[in-house]
Amino acid sequence: MNPTRAQRLAGRFAAQWLLVPRPEDVRWLTGFSGSTSTALVDADGRVVLFVDGRYAERAVDEAAAAGRDVDVVRTKGGAAVIADVAARAGTGAMSVDPHAVTAAFMDELGSRVQVVREPGPVAALRRVKDGSEVQLIERAASIADAAIQAVVADGLAGRTEAEVRLRLDGEMLRLGADDVSFPTIVASGPNGARPHHEPSNREIIDGDMVVIDMGAAVGGYRSDMTRTVAVGTVDPALVLMHGIVAEAQAAGLSVVREGAAGSEVDGAVRAVYREHGVEHEYLHGTGHGVGLVIHETPIMGPSCKEVLSAGEVVTVEPGLYRKGVGGVRIEDLVVVTATGCRILSHTPKELSCPPSARMT
Amino acid sequence: MNPTRAQRLAGRFAAQWLLVPRPEDVRWLTGFSGSTSTALVDADGRVVLFVDGRYAERAVDEAAAAGRDVDVVRTKGGAAVIADVAARAGTGAMSVDPHAVTAAFMDELGSRVQVVREPGPVAALRRVKDGSEVQLIERAASIADAAIQAVVADGLAGRTEAEVRLRLDGEMLRLGADDVSFPTIVASGPNGARPHHEPSNREIIDGDMVVIDMGAAVGGYRSDMTRTVAVGTVDPALVLMHGIVAEAQAAGLSVVREGAAGSEVDGAVRAVYREHGVEHEYLHGTGHGVGLVIHETPIMGPSCKEVLSAGEVVTVEPGLYRKGVGGVRIEDLVVVTATGCRILSHTPKELSCPPSARMT
Repeated sequence: MNPTRAQRLAGRFAAQWLLVPRPEDVRWLTGFSGSTSTALVDADGRVVLFVDGRYAERAVDEAAAAGRDVDVVRTKGGAAVIADVAARAGTGAMSVDPHAVTAAFMDELGSRVQVVREPGPVAALRRVKDGSEVQLIERAASIADAAIQAVVADGLAGRTEAEVRLRLDGEMLRLGADDVSFPTIVASGPNGARPHHEPSNREIIDGDMVVIDMGAAVGGYRSDMTRTVAVGTVDPALVLMHGIVAEAQAAGLSVVREGAAGSEVDGAVRAVYREHGVEHEYLHGTGHGVGLVIHETPIMGPSCKEVLSAGEVVTVEPGLYRKGVGGVRIEDLVVVTATGCRILSHTPKELSCPPSARMT
Repeated sequence: MNPTRAQRLAGRFAAQWLLVPRPEDVRWLTGFSGSTSTALVDADGRVVLFVDGRYAERAVDEAAAAGRDVDVVRTKGGAAVIADVAARAGTGAMSVDPHAVTAAFMDELGSRVQVVREPGPVAALRRVKDGSEVQLIERAASIADAAIQAVVADGLAGRTEAEVRLRLDGEMLRLGADDVSFPTIVASGPNGARPHHEPSNREIIDGDMVVIDMGAAVGGYRSDMTRTVAVGTVDPALVLMHGIVAEAQAAGLSVVREGAAGSEVDGAVRAVYREHGVEHEYLHGTGHGVGLVIHETPIMGPSCKEVLSAGEVVTVEPGLYRKGVGGVRIEDLVVVTATGCRILSHTPKELSCPPSARMT
C-alpha cells in the first residue's frame, strides 16, 4: 500500500510532532475544507485535527470521505487551541514553521512546549500534484475556458467591467465551479495598465483592449488564466503590445520543464522584452504555483532559484503595462513534465469581439 | 480641522514608529484597497505605504481619492519589505503587534530595528464607525435585503443550494455590490445542522428549512445577515426551533447598547435556550463586529468581557443545530447606540416560500 500523505511527512521534521497551522495544508492532509483549523502529525503519520464547534461534524465527515484516518478534537477555537495542542503534545517537542504562525502564537506555544523552528514540509509536498489533484485543476481550467469564450462571444462592448465580471463568475458557477478561484479581474482600456485592477463601472468601448484574469475552483483546487481581448478596432500600438507579450509568453513556456529554475522562465520572458525595449513596462514576476491556494511556491521572478519538478502546476503570465494607454497580459496554466509542459488553458490567445455586444 | 485617522493614532503606540501590517488596517488608514501592503506611521501622523510594483499606481490614486496624505514607496514585495521598512525607520524603535505578523517576520524585523511588542491600535479605532462607514455598511445591508427577498420570492424548491447561492450572489452584484461579503451559505434540510455548511448540489424540497447567511460588500465595507426560510409545509419541530431562535435573537438584541459587555448579549441568548432545554444545540458565539472585514472584534461569546461602544456595528446571530434534522439561525446587523441599537437588516424574520419554485 502506498504511504498516506501523513506518512510521507515522516522524516521531514525534526521534532516528535509537526504542527500544521495553515488551512490549505490541513486540507491536503485531512480532507477538511474549513477555514479555521490546526493539525498535529507524529512521526508515525498519526493525525490529530483541532476544530471548533462550528466545524466538528463536517471535519469528521470530510476526513471519512477523503479516506483519511484523522482524530478530530473539538476545541474552543481562537487562542484556546494553543493549550489544547500543547496538552496533546505532552512533553514531546514540536516542529513549527515561523512563517506559518503569528509571533504571538509562537510565543504562547513556546511557553508551553519545546519548539523546533523549521520550514513546514507540507507546502513542499503539496507542490507536486497527484493524478486526482491535476484532474480537479484541469476541470477548473476547462470551466474557465468555457466561461470566457461564452462571455466574449456575447460581446463586451457596452457592458461595464463589473457586469462582465458578473457574467464570467456566473458562467463559471453554472458550469460547475464550486467557487471562483480569486476575484476576477476585468481591466479595460486605460485600466489595463494596472495589473491588479478591480472591475469598475467603466463601460467597455470600441477600441479597448480588455485584460481578463480569472479562474475556477473545483474541490478546493484552483485554475488561473489571463487573456486580453481586442474590442472592435484597436490602436496598432496595442496590437503590437499584444504581439510582444505573446512572443514573451511563448518564450517563457518554452523553457518550462523539470529541472528549470524559476529565474530561467522569468529570464526568457524578460529577454524578449529587452529586445523590444519594453522591459520597464513589465511590473511583476512571470508565474507561480497553483493548487489549493492561488499563489503557491515557486514564485517565479528574476531571483527565483527554485527548480521545477514534474507534476507541479504553474502559471506563465507575462504582461506589459503602459500608463494612460492600457495593458496586455497572457497567462496559461501548465503541468510541468520531464521534457516540457502540458498546457491546461485551451482558450485561443488571439481573442476579439465586435464593437457592440449581442442583444441578450 | 478634525485630526486625520493617522493623527488619531498618536499617543496610542509606545515607539517612534507604528507598523501597520494588516491590509484592512492599511485600507482604513490610507484608502489603499490592495491585498498586500505594509504601512508605517510616526507620532506626527505621517504615513508611509509600502506596496509592490503591481499596486504602486493604484495606491497613489486611491490615497488621493480618499483625501489621505500618504508617501507611497514601491518595494520588491515579499520578505524584501522588511528591509525597506527597517531602512525607513532608521534608528527609531517600532511598535509591532505580535498577533499581526508572523514569527519569521518578527524575528527578521527584530534583527534590524528595535521592536516594541504591543497590541496594534488601529483595530481598536476601526471598531467605532464614522458616518461614511455606516453609510456604506447600510448600503451593503440593504442590497442583501433586496437580494434575499427577490430570490426567495422566486421560490427555492427544486433548485440546488449551489444554484440558490448563485442567484443570491448575482442579485447582490446586480444591485451594486462590489463583491459578496463572504462565501454565501445556503444550508437546506439536514445540511442546516452545520453552521458553516458549503452550498452543495442537494436539491431543496418541500418541508425544508433553509439557512441563508449572506452579505454584500460596498466600498470595502461588509454586511452580514442570516434568515431561515421555510419551504412549503415544514415539520412542527422545525417551526418550534425557529420560534425559540427568534425569541433568543430578540433577547440578544434587547441587551445591545453602549456599555453592555459581549458576554451579556451572549448570555441573554443562552438564557432563552436554557429555559427551553436546548443550549447544547447552540454551537457558536452570538455575534461579532463587522466592517472592512467580516469578523472583527468584539467576538461576543460567553467569556467576552469587551464592552460595546456607540457607533460599533455588530451582528446578533443565535442558531440551533440538530444533527440529522436541520438548523435555524437568525442574524441581524446592528449599529450600537447610547440606548440600544439600530437594526440595519430589514428582511422579515418569518420567511417562507411555496413547495415549488416559480418558472423563471
